[in-house]
Amino acid sequence: MPHGINMEIDKISLTHGSGGRQMHKLIHEYLVSQLKNGILEKLDDSALLDNHKSGKLAMTTDSYVVSPLFFKGGDIGRLCVCGTVNDLATSGAEAAYLSLAFILEEGFPLSDLKKIIDSISQTALEAGVKIVTGDTKVVEKGKGDGIYINTCGVGFIPDGVHLSTYNGRKGDLIAVTGPIGNHEISLMLTRNLLTFNADIHSDAAPLNKYVSRLLKLTDGIKTIKDPTRGGLASALVEIAENSNCEIRIEEEKIPVDKDVQAVCDLTGLDPLYLANEGKYIIVCSPEAKEAVQSIFSNLSFMGEITGFQEKGRVLMETSSGGLRKIGMLETTQLPRIC
Amino acid sequence: MPHGINMEIDKISLTHGSGGRQMHKLIHEYLVSQLKNGILEKLDDSALLDNHKSGKLAMTTDSYVVSPLFFKGGDIGRLCVCGTVNDLATSGAEAAYLSLAFILEEGFPLSDLKKIIDSISQTALEAGVKIVTGDTKVVEKGKGDGIYINTCGVGFIPDGVHLSTYNGRKGDLIAVTGPIGNHEISLMLTRNLLTFNADIHSDAAPLNKYVSRLLKLTDGIKTIKDPTRGGLASALVEIAENSNCEIRIEEEKIPVDKDVQAVCDLTGLDPLYLANEGKYIIVCSPEAKEAVQSIFSNLSFMGEITGFQEKGRVLMETSSGGLRKIGMLETTQLPRIC
Repeated sequence: MPHGINMEIDKISLTHGSGGRQMHKLIHEYLVSQLKNGILEKLDDSALLDNHKSGKLAMTTDSYVVSPLFFKGGDIGRLCVCGTVNDLATSGAEAAYLSLAFILEEGFPLSDLKKIIDSISQTALEAGVKIVTGDTKVVEKGKGDGIYINTCGVGFIPDGVHLSTYNGRKGDLIAVTGPIGNHEISLMLTRNLLTFNADIHSDAAPLNKYVSRLLKLTDGIKTIKDPTRGGLASALVEIAENSNCEIRIEEEKIPVDKDVQAVCDLTGLDPLYLANEGKYIIVCSPEAKEAVQSIFSNLSFMGEITGFQEKGRVLMETSSGGLRKIGMLETTQLPRIC
Repeated sequence: MPHGINMEIDKISLTHGSGGRQMHKLIHEYLVSQLKNGILEKLDDSALLDNHKSGKLAMTTDSYVVSPLFFKGGDIGRLCVCGTVNDLATSGAEAAYLSLAFILEEGFPLSDLKKIIDSISQTALEAGVKIVTGDTKVVEKGKGDGIYINTCGVGFIPDGVHLSTYNGRKGDLIAVTGPIGNHEISLMLTRNLLTFNADIHSDAAPLNKYVSRLLKLTDGIKTIKDPTRGGLASALVEIAENSNCEIRIEEEKIPVDKDVQAVCDLTGLDPLYLANEGKYIIVCSPEAKEAVQSIFSNLSFMGEITGFQEKGRVLMETSSGGLRKIGMLETTQLPRIC
């Protein structure tokens, strides 16, 4: 435990958010010491960053309000790095810099804060991204839920790379990089919303390095999209609507882990609408198929863009031979999943 | 009022944060329509930004948890743009892009959200900055306080500009760009913490354009720092500590509005520790004095860097002729001020 923080009361107090001495101590002893890099250390009001000066910039932000904070396969710290890094990579950007902002509730245990910062530090290292600037606010007890985190990410897009949900064209293939639904089911189990004895872990993982390698192999990638809140279904509808095309997928080719499927069968949950935190939907030209397969070993090509019979529509050939229209999520399956 | 949102229940519900259709509607009808620009409109997971490709990048973030949300002279929307743009300008950066992330509490009135977004839109226009990416989360009633906002900003630092709290040297002059304390006293009055009949407005304002003009006039600017949480005192101590020098200021030269001073006299509050949202401390060489004065009409040169008698110390010559050591804020004067 760092010195200098009042350890008799091992909890966040309003003074930690005051802008004064206690806040400076907290930031130095918990954050800078753990996330150390030459940029963050300066703690000026804005961070000075090297500019790669080629191609475009990408920028993305997410707030993390996940409940519970710690779950099988991850925690809010791992999520807040993976989510932002993965969003950057959907544009083909190489994630470079992250901001990190905490909204802490009065009374939040400093030991939990330390665990979360450790996890952020490890995940940032894994993703190869630097935390360069941050902010800490404290709200009164009952005005938050322990900790909320916002991260914003900036990355550099290599020249010639143009990925977007608007790029899909007739004949493009559609893949998902692995089994879906694990993150949301893992959270449900941790919240004891399901009485089901399954060892299901969140898939939270940084995927940026895979994307960088993939984009060096082929120029046939059109769209990379992470099916988080709203699940695979909502993400596919967004692609179909933005690309002004029809998408057709095959239910049998959508990978779902046995345990996740079992939970869905018992509860009536639809895996298509469950959140993921370490999966991508990839839209690519047929020529790029091999390259995509070589990077993502658990990948499944589950469908294709069939043209413009009905713009913005997603159809699924069901296992039983029917044809089901897939819509966006209309109501919440589970709130506070990321 | 936009169509398509359920107006029978004019309130935020958990469904608005689900990632599904209701969230998409909220984002399109409340945010994109109001903040419209070609970058934000695409609503891809990360925004594509033109890179100026000269000089360094600056990046900064802040979460806004101010209470109350609306106050004399501003609201949380105006604050969340000004704070981030002003932080960027402390590095000399020309603010270019802002992210915007909401944490909404279930039940928050959509009409208030609309007012806040209008204010964000107007202030962004005033500051000449684009909102390019965003996020919306909804938490259950009792797990937030209406609305929390995070903004992250990215700007471009012109070649040759090097501002930092580490740059102060013996002989440099220290100025404040106008009267201090108005923001925090305005909040106290709105919260009815003071029974005082004064018409005090927050000073919340974007200052980036003044900084850009100043940096074109002179290369004698060492440090620009905004005295927000922790006030003038904490900001001066930070400069003294980072620049490893002693600062001496004169109490009589610190501008405080008559009404603010009256409130302080009655309550025992110290204006040196009150938060500001539209003021800068400027450290500059004596040669730059005239340039600084020409840009900030309410400015006061209140002190200077006197050398290294005791590194990191700030001394104030009081109006009564004494010498008072100024420390950082040790406890909260008022929480949730920004």
